[in-house]
Amino acid sequence: MTTDRIRDFLATRRPEGPCLVVDLDIVRDNYRAFEKALPDSSIYYAVKANPAPEILKLLASMGSNFDCASVAEIEMALDAGATARRISFGNTIKKERDVARAHALGVNLFAVDSHEEVEKVARAAPGARVFCRVLTDGEGAEWPLSRKFGCVPQMAVDVLVYAHQLGLVSYGVSFHVGSQMTKLDAWDAALSDARRVFEKLAQQGIELKMVNMGGGFPTKYLKDVPTAEAYGQAIFGALRKHFGNNLPETIIEPGRGMVGSAGVIKAEVVLVSKKADTDQLRWVFLDIGKFGGLAETMDEAIRYPIRTARDADDMENCVIAGPTCDSADVLYEKAPYPLPVSLTIGDEVLIEGTGAYTTTYASVAFNGFEPLRSYVI
Amino acid sequence: MTTDRIRDFLATRRPEGPCLVVDLDIVRDNYRAFEKALPDSSIYYAVKANPAPEILKLLASMGSNFDCASVAEIEMALDAGATARRISFGNTIKKERDVARAHALGVNLFAVDSHEEVEKVARAAPGARVFCRVLTDGEGAEWPLSRKFGCVPQMAVDVLVYAHQLGLVSYGVSFHVGSQMTKLDAWDAALSDARRVFEKLAQQGIELKMVNMGGGFPTKYLKDVPTAEAYGQAIFGALRKHFGNNLPETIIEPGRGMVGSAGVIKAEVVLVSKKADTDQLRWVFLDIGKFGGLAETMDEAIRYPIRTARDADDMENCVIAGPTCDSADVLYEKAPYPLPVSLTIGDEVLIEGTGAYTTTYASVAFNGFEPLRSYVI
Repeated sequence: MTTDRIRDFLATRRPEGPCLVVDLDIVRDNYRAFEKALPDSSIYYAVKANPAPEILKLLASMGSNFDCASVAEIEMALDAGATARRISFGNTIKKERDVARAHALGVNLFAVDSHEEVEKVARAAPGARVFCRVLTDGEGAEWPLSRKFGCVPQMAVDVLVYAHQLGLVSYGVSFHVGSQMTKLDAWDAALSDARRVFEKLAQQGIELKMVNMGGGFPTKYLKDVPTAEAYGQAIFGALRKHFGNNLPETIIEPGRGMVGSAGVIKAEVVLVSKKADTDQLRWVFLDIGKFGGLAETMDEAIRYPIRTARDADDMENCVIAGPTCDSADVLYEKAPYPLPVSLTIGDEVLIEGTGAYTTTYASVAFNGFEPLRSYVI
Repeated sequence: MTTDRIRDFLATRRPEGPCLVVDLDIVRDNYRAFEKALPDSSIYYAVKANPAPEILKLLASMGSNFDCASVAEIEMALDAGATARRISFGNTIKKERDVARAHALGVNLFAVDSHEEVEKVARAAPGARVFCRVLTDGEGAEWPLSRKFGCVPQMAVDVLVYAHQLGLVSYGVSFHVGSQMTKLDAWDAALSDARRVFEKLAQQGIELKMVNMGGGFPTKYLKDVPTAEAYGQAIFGALRKHFGNNLPETIIEPGRGMVGSAGVIKAEVVLVSKKADTDQLRWVFLDIGKFGGLAETMDEAIRYPIRTARDADDMENCVIAGPTCDSADVLYEKAPYPLPVSLTIGDEVLIEGTGAYTTTYASVAFNGFEPLRSYVI
């Protein structure tokens, strides 16, 4: 996944310190693959995955819409050339003054999952469209979602009726099957729930129009994942099964699936050592770790492919850790990671599949280390 | 722990958004308590806990030394008025060019825990003093250390002999009992190991001079913790037990214990909701979470005291979560947290004991939210 363009950039520019390099050609390919796989769905790029202006500009120019988590992200999408009608304020937890700001900027689509949030939107964005997020169980996702977002389907019905009563446009429902979801049938159960909410609203004379199917589309890390086409077929099949010929508008919100595979982090081996002269297990310390952008190694959830110039040599398991004076800054220890026996201090390593959820997770200055630099080429 | 000065500052200045306020009077009191409890030890403040310039300046003016994790932290300590001789480069994972930069700035005390690191220091800082970190088990610490730092005592002997052979000054040993350590006898076992390393080096004609006893001194969160005096007595007793009348120089590196209790985070309730109409459990969402500075709630390790203006009302358990579109951004869920039943959207909450390990852990801009602001008064 380290493209020739990324390899050339690193060889020519030789940036000092750890950095992320994102290849826009891959982002473009990923966008087209989603368009092709789900031609009737609108794509709302999840800005939080990587808000680099170059990425937002490219996607805006290709016709993408944007799923934003905050007013700052809305402003970034607008700056990149998106119109306000192409933006969804997808966070179910918003300050009322932020709803008002978004509304003043022209945003007209808001996520809710509670009566209290509906009241805020009704006051601060009167007449706006809302969709209610429904809880799904996230089984099969590598980065599982908790119950933090959404409410049970029956409550979603009440929330959308309430929104209607308060003068909002009850527009649809949303769900999220869990990030890095590799089970193709995960969308089926969620779409079945969505269909039931549509029916119950219709019984009260409220016609929902849209299903927001969220994200969850994976990036290939070490294990193979299904293709965008396979996802498209599975999702379209589930839509037909539950909605028949009366298909609703649909939205997808790829973040990781759009940019994850487009990025590579260049890092350096700072130390290779052991804890006892008699130990077999090596510790490999890199100049990037959990607080420098690799937060998703938390609980060793995401296992990134790591390439070195010595990968033809013998491999042996090691613990991989970051450079900070924080004992939690260990990337892979419970399941050690095979790296070349000949790996040595000063070697460069390439950490692939790191285009999503890295730069923005980086800490401001933990241990005095500057945040992860990023180059979009 | 919300002092009158912090309360007055918040009432007068009314800062917008979440922020940390640190009261320097408490930092001063904490420094004096450490001086009094361990009068024969040198205090090296762990800069990573909170590198705010006002804190570093105050401590430099009181005579503190500084434990630094990076060249950037060394420069901050120098800027605050510390001389290079009062600085320890305490990270065992250093790039050789950073060792050289520190050495050029006059730093002459380096941590090591491997032969490889000794070689770097010997090349980049010839003749410097080194201390070797020894592994301890961290039992009893609320924020346990892994095996990331240090080596077994027998290997520490070899490392220090090697340093001597390479022309460095083998100066001492260090250990760290684990952050937020509340067991007073934790230092006893570590000092016993340290004594054995001293003896083995002496047998080879190398006289160690210093024991770096690290940090671990706790901040009072919800549970009571022993006083600085109690720690001082326990540590002095263990030193006498293992070193008799021939006491070495000693260093302590308080970070959390120096600034944790001096800080309070002001935050706002963004949403109080339930996941089903029939649920008893409330979800309380704040405008600060794991990615905005409260990273130490990871695995619900640190349980901060949270104060509201409604604490006289009935309390009921709730889940507390942050404002980002990230399902991992939940602070307390496995062990729910009691908050007033009357707590409502827009209420201010004060999160106490947050002076350490908050501002620098904050992410650059996850979800578009700006990093935690900090006011030192």
